[in-house]
Amino acid sequence: MTTINLNADMGESYGRFTVGNDEAILKIIKSASIACGFHAGDPTVMANAVRLAKENGVSIGAHPGFNDLWGFGRRQIQMNTKDLEYMISYQIGALNGIAAAVGAKVTHVKPHGALNNMAHVDPEYASAIARGIKAVDRDIIFVANTLSEMVSAGRKEGLRVAEEAYVDRTYDDSGAMTSRKYPDAMIHDTEQAIKQVLSFISEGAIISKTGKKMPARIHTVCCHGDEATGVGVVSAVRQALEQTVAIGRLRQ
Amino acid sequence: MTTINLNADMGESYGRFTVGNDEAILKIIKSASIACGFHAGDPTVMANAVRLAKENGVSIGAHPGFNDLWGFGRRQIQMNTKDLEYMISYQIGALNGIAAAVGAKVTHVKPHGALNNMAHVDPEYASAIARGIKAVDRDIIFVANTLSEMVSAGRKEGLRVAEEAYVDRTYDDSGAMTSRKYPDAMIHDTEQAIKQVLSFISEGAIISKTGKKMPARIHTVCCHGDEATGVGVVSAVRQALEQTVAIGRLRQ
Amino acid sequence: MTTINLNADMGESYGRFTVGNDEAILKIIKSASIACGFHAGDPTVMANAVRLAKENGVSIGAHPGFNDLWGFGRRQIQMNTKDLEYMISYQIGALNGIAAAVGAKVTHVKPHGALNNMAHVDPEYASAIARGIKAVDRDIIFVANTLSEMVSAGRKEGLRVAEEAYVDRTYDDSGAMTSRKYPDAMIHDTEQAIKQVLSFISEGAIISKTGKKMPARIHTVCCHGDEATGVGVVSAVRQALEQTVAIGRLRQ
Amino acid sequence: MTTINLNADMGESYGRFTVGNDEAILKIIKSASIACGFHAGDPTVMANAVRLAKENGVSIGAHPGFNDLWGFGRRQIQMNTKDLEYMISYQIGALNGIAAAVGAKVTHVKPHGALNNMAHVDPEYASAIARGIKAVDRDIIFVANTLSEMVSAGRKEGLRVAEEAYVDRTYDDSGAMTSRKYPDAMIHDTEQAIKQVLSFISEGAIISKTGKKMPARIHTVCCHGDEATGVGVVSAVRQALEQTVAIGRLRQ
Repeated sequence: MTTINLNADMGESYGRFTVGNDEAILKIIKSASIACGFHAGDPTVMANAVRLAKENGVSIGAHPGFNDLWGFGRRQIQMNTKDLEYMISYQIGALNGIAAAVGAKVTHVKPHGALNNMAHVDPEYASAIARGIKAVDRDIIFVANTLSEMVSAGRKEGLRVAEEAYVDRTYDDSGAMTSRKYPDAMIHDTEQAIKQVLSFISEGAIISKTGKKMPARIHTVCCHGDEATGVGVVSAVRQALEQTVAIGRLRQ
Repeated sequence: MTTINLNADMGESYGRFTVGNDEAILKIIKSASIACGFHAGDPTVMANAVRLAKENGVSIGAHPGFNDLWGFGRRQIQMNTKDLEYMISYQIGALNGIAAAVGAKVTHVKPHGALNNMAHVDPEYASAIARGIKAVDRDIIFVANTLSEMVSAGRKEGLRVAEEAYVDRTYDDSGAMTSRKYPDAMIHDTEQAIKQVLSFISEGAIISKTGKKMPARIHTVCCHGDEATGVGVVSAVRQALEQTVAIGRLRQ
Repeated sequence: MTTINLNADMGESYGRFTVGNDEAILKIIKSASIACGFHAGDPTVMANAVRLAKENGVSIGAHPGFNDLWGFGRRQIQMNTKDLEYMISYQIGALNGIAAAVGAKVTHVKPHGALNNMAHVDPEYASAIARGIKAVDRDIIFVANTLSEMVSAGRKEGLRVAEEAYVDRTYDDSGAMTSRKYPDAMIHDTEQAIKQVLSFISEGAIISKTGKKMPARIHTVCCHGDEATGVGVVSAVRQALEQTVAIGRLRQ
Repeated sequence: MTTINLNADMGESYGRFTVGNDEAILKIIKSASIACGFHAGDPTVMANAVRLAKENGVSIGAHPGFNDLWGFGRRQIQMNTKDLEYMISYQIGALNGIAAAVGAKVTHVKPHGALNNMAHVDPEYASAIARGIKAVDRDIIFVANTLSEMVSAGRKEGLRVAEEAYVDRTYDDSGAMTSRKYPDAMIHDTEQAIKQVLSFISEGAIISKTGKKMPARIHTVCCHGDEATGVGVVSAVRQALEQTVAIGRLRQ
């Protein structure tokens, strides 16, 4: 039986600014990507997210983003790739520090928001992220959008790459997620979400909005408890998935 | 022969905002405390500081401060001690991430500015810092103002504590540094600086502005290349020190 | 018939970080104090708050706070009073800019959070705030905690001062609000809130937790739609108030 | 005799982070564009810059940039144009607040760094900036790169536009400044700088690196006291200019 991972972003509050639905979503997923203070996630929010993940047997990863609280890391920023590389190492290290305080271990890294979108298509950004990961710990798993520049950049650096696809995002014919600025970026419907996720397994492919089938080997599926779909949809997706595959943690 | 350490703060630039005189001061000191992004020091500035320190055979430490770029970490902030504890672990971890990228190792932690001043007298702040250090790595040396609450808090947590005194700061009768808001906070004169540093060794004490002698065992002496004294004074202090003691790195 | 003002804080979201219950509370209050970007409130959040206030016939004021998103302006920061004075002028000016864009006018200023608490007892902070207001527009009303240093500082600078008391905060015997770090800081009970507000009018005084009666002339009453009390309590308070007094806007 | 304006950016320090050469450059220029706290310039730095400008008879303008201290506003950020519009109004308003405190008046606006570069070619950014200016004060002069989308956007909104060219930046054949990432972006040589500035007047055009002549009517010339050219070059440029034209302030 194939094993697939279910992941979600977490710890995206900041001080008194509360975002997300961490406690509910942790009951469903197996790996949590935790914001590292640049687009969200202060040190205490991070510690609470790590602790909750640990209590729920969920593995943790760093979710580094641009230093942009106002934009929640969803605004594209053109930065020097050397700055980017160190920014990645910084954020992973910061989460390592917090994880040590809680007695947990960072096992994966997944870029957030606009950084993720940019590195999907930009080989220099993708490579800077891969180098930033490798510099801190070459055993960390790089969770990378399938069909993206990050997959090849990660492998080139000798990292283990987990290819990722989304429960609740539609894809265009290039294999990229539809930008959030378009109304059809998100999948709101439970049946459509389930259908999409099952097709990752049954077709071994991403299927775009126009029906284009792009072969892909998905290791991990990302869901959002605070988006259009919500906890109910994520829960239904998990149940549907369990009919076909085993659900597991990301393992180093 | 007694060994004493000479340390300085470093990596306190931020993006295009340049502070300090890192290259010159690294030729003189043996341990560098590197800002970690909260009061100064972006990831690239940190990486450059770590690299320079390594090239000069200087050991490195984290120099965590309040998240206050405007105030350069020199404004007192009243914060929750749990937030403080995680803020310390976060910043140490961040520097660990950067140090790994450069191939160096963080061997000490020294709080910056107003955080250092507050923890000097506040046992709760002192203890939160000690716990934040211990959580990340219990072998890290806590560089703590001599005669401060940090010394006892560090020892209570089982950390190795290096007691520190300053080349270019005067002391009041409580054993604390004179606040920077007073005109006599800084020592500007080379002879006075040398005299103060030598008295740490010969007297085994801190001597206040009024002449009060407070027994203290100094392991490390802090100097500033960008303050009143400047690189010339620091260099003269080192030469004077070398007549009596060996100058060494902080060692775990 | 006496006229009294009902005010609330508003526009305390930041980007995707959502705080408060602005639309509901605007139906009840007469004046809104709008965060100005330092502790909360990005330019778009500010513009939306001003627009909503205008649509509801609610007058607007600036709600300047410390530059501390993490602490939501609720952490005390020791700052230079010249920096504080300019920080106040900056934030009022910023809201003026946004208000102009929406076609509204800033008629009052009320300090936020820890800045408000510090200026309650510190004449230098109180005076810096008053000077910062006066510098921008001497017709702006200074909404100041009754029995605080701000009342006298505002009058000394020739500003019109509106003395303020709280629906949902208890008072200690000094006339200051109980700090939020104590469990009895907030009034959770509707009857108690109503009783407290009516006593401001009937007694012409603030009555502390211990029953101490401190004569005070209250012009404006502050409520929170997002705190313990909630919109329901604020609504009940308004209804109770309307039995005795007229509810009006702050007027220059 | 034609009148031309000489302007420079100013107030780009931040707390203890010092940038630029404000006092020297103010002796040479006639209008100063003052950073407004987002890419540089805290409230006190702004107040000091306004005061210095006033003392030197130099008119002042707002120099709004992206909220990016790390990148000094020189990193392109993709933002929502509504956010951008309010961000401009916010920063102008903030400087108005500070200027009122000092007794000065904001008479122009000039976008900073990457925002300026993006709005040069992007009509939506250009228009958002023009609307943000107009919303605060329709008498403010929009200092816009000649040959840019900002010129037309400003005129379309009914603003007075001052077309600007640079002393020390080279131009490409599109009429845009060469990006700072290329080595020939800056003019380092005094003679070349003087030649370029005089050609703006004599040719009524911008001449690109390849010699392409693009007709343009320059009202104001920007110089940098802290860049390659330095105060000496700016001073020489002014002397050369004075042979042909009158040097004046931007006037509303």
